[in-house]
Amino acid sequence: MLVDGKNYEGIWLDENDPAVVKVINQQKLPFSFETADLRSVEDVWQAIREMVVRGAPLIGVTGAYGMYLATLEINAYTNIPDHLTNAARYLVSSRPTAVNLSLSVNYVLKRLLQNIHSKNLPKKALAAARETAEREKSICREIGIHGLKLIEEISIRKNGEPVNILTHCNAGWLACIDYGTALSPVYFAHERGIPVHVWVDETRPVNQGARLTAWELGKNGVPYTLIPDNTGGYIMQKGLVDMVIVGSDRTSSNGDVVNKIGTYLKALAAHDNKIPFYAAVPSTSIDMQIIDAFSQVTIEERSAEEVIMVTGIEEGEIHQVRICPEDSAAANWGFDITPARLITGLITEKGIIRANSEDLKNLFTDKSL
Amino acid sequence: MLVDGKNYEGIWLDENDPAVVKVINQQKLPFSFETADLRSVEDVWQAIREMVVRGAPLIGVTGAYGMYLATLEINAYTNIPDHLTNAARYLVSSRPTAVNLSLSVNYVLKRLLQNIHSKNLPKKALAAARETAEREKSICREIGIHGLKLIEEISIRKNGEPVNILTHCNAGWLACIDYGTALSPVYFAHERGIPVHVWVDETRPVNQGARLTAWELGKNGVPYTLIPDNTGGYIMQKGLVDMVIVGSDRTSSNGDVVNKIGTYLKALAAHDNKIPFYAAVPSTSIDMQIIDAFSQVTIEERSAEEVIMVTGIEEGEIHQVRICPEDSAAANWGFDITPARLITGLITEKGIIRANSEDLKNLFTDKSL
Repeated sequence: MLVDGKNYEGIWLDENDPAVVKVINQQKLPFSFETADLRSVEDVWQAIREMVVRGAPLIGVTGAYGMYLATLEINAYTNIPDHLTNAARYLVSSRPTAVNLSLSVNYVLKRLLQNIHSKNLPKKALAAARETAEREKSICREIGIHGLKLIEEISIRKNGEPVNILTHCNAGWLACIDYGTALSPVYFAHERGIPVHVWVDETRPVNQGARLTAWELGKNGVPYTLIPDNTGGYIMQKGLVDMVIVGSDRTSSNGDVVNKIGTYLKALAAHDNKIPFYAAVPSTSIDMQIIDAFSQVTIEERSAEEVIMVTGIEEGEIHQVRICPEDSAAANWGFDITPARLITGLITEKGIIRANSEDLKNLFTDKSL
Repeated sequence: MLVDGKNYEGIWLDENDPAVVKVINQQKLPFSFETADLRSVEDVWQAIREMVVRGAPLIGVTGAYGMYLATLEINAYTNIPDHLTNAARYLVSSRPTAVNLSLSVNYVLKRLLQNIHSKNLPKKALAAARETAEREKSICREIGIHGLKLIEEISIRKNGEPVNILTHCNAGWLACIDYGTALSPVYFAHERGIPVHVWVDETRPVNQGARLTAWELGKNGVPYTLIPDNTGGYIMQKGLVDMVIVGSDRTSSNGDVVNKIGTYLKALAAHDNKIPFYAAVPSTSIDMQIIDAFSQVTIEERSAEEVIMVTGIEEGEIHQVRICPEDSAAANWGFDITPARLITGLITEKGIIRANSEDLKNLFTDKSL
């Protein structure tokens, strides 16, 4: 997608040094646009943990590139299967909630273990990592095309008045490789000249909405309005929201959606106001092993610092300010679970389905990454 | 209530200069504890508008003190009834949503117009303003005593394990004169040795929870944990919330509660998880004229700056930092409306009632401020 007229994807190999994986440093946005260099498995682990890269699809692909970097760490004394298996396990431990990470890392691992005697393991690893990236890109494009129809329908019903879409967190191209998941339909609609307007939840505590969604929508010319996380219910009550689209970090086999904390509250409000609520769900974030998200998915608990401190800019300087009394205790769960009953539909790369086990099973019987 | 061992109320007359009304400057909390001097109707208007004072009961009483300051502005050439009527109208215009403000200001105005030939109008005004303050204090105390029973019941059921209470915004003593509304039962329970723990919603965009509720609970030794506004749903899903108590800026005759934006989302989540949801409602914030809050109550729209900028402290210095791209549009509605159907009960000074017109009418037939 566009950044000041130039096309970017979420991750790429350094043109001049193939031992360096480059990503956009999302910690720095929107205050400055910087890339970060990842040179080791440890760098990748830190980048995922510290949310230099974030978003379920992108952390999956970054983990896959981490396996490529692991192959570069092999020397004559390395027990290669152990080294790769340990690297994979370590990479997956960087963040617990999204399923894409383990899926993509283990995909590369499996490919490498099958080719363990290959003369050029790094080449094999890079090819596999690139496959995961291409797969996410193509999924995001398909999600956009399917979701576009929903926006078109509303646009026709509204006689071309702007379609108001509420989104939570950042499930845009920054969270993916390109297009995004929740925002992919929005970009497709905007490109085709359908008037859209996005309500952007700021998404405390890390402010992915205020920092990232606002930034990428702005860079691509999509009209948006930033709102506090508290606002969504009221604007639904007022009839100012036509639909909600969110992403998903993990979707269970019965259609429950684990996504950024606060998603559940918006789903409740959409349901109460009869507003369609969609989750954009790449098959790579569906976990058919999960029957009950409440008991089976680990909901990440992050540092209290993220709640207590807010990062922003004042007169060109970045500050991290404390917003509460010095001795405040704070809690910081990263995700919540939106029950399938509150979800109008799942926008997948293979079409829009109901959030239930029947539709999920039908659509993904041929699932094979 | 206590601040570093000393007892404070929300508003008082300067000991040395009776032409000065003193309030705690809530804009400065929790970073510094300062008082502000109000010397004119204009000062009062600004203090309410800029949220130096906030909270429905306190802005009502501050408005009443504003009428006292209006009487000090009378000189030989003043058309007294016009002057007072205009001052009242101006004071009421400072914030539109809470009903207490117009109720208290008009109460003082009426008393003054009845005594328009009095030799000592300021004395009459001060007496009337103090009546509004005493009334709010006594209401808050009674709300605390009634609400305490609810906490006691849960505490017994939990065999003395801490009762987890979620609150939104600040409906504590800072919002009132003393005790608070939503927090009054909490303070009573804490005083009586019933273990309580408060989940404090940070309450973006102005962060009344992070700045004020956290501060006043801390100063009074009540255990609390600060959470982003997004978190409430998930901790209810996890069974970590025993009850919700919020305040109310205006309650309609059918029991709908207009309160700080985001309240509605917590009410939906409480309802979905079968957790009791109470609004602490002084009779002074009930508006029996309102049949339909959605069409009849003006929901204040405040400056986009409050969304875009966050105030905090870094190394002892206060900063106002921008948290989003420079050109972001932002929207900032101050309140939302929680429908009566989501409310377990209203904790009033006369007892706990259901949120419906029958109970409200029965309880307030003798209402006469």
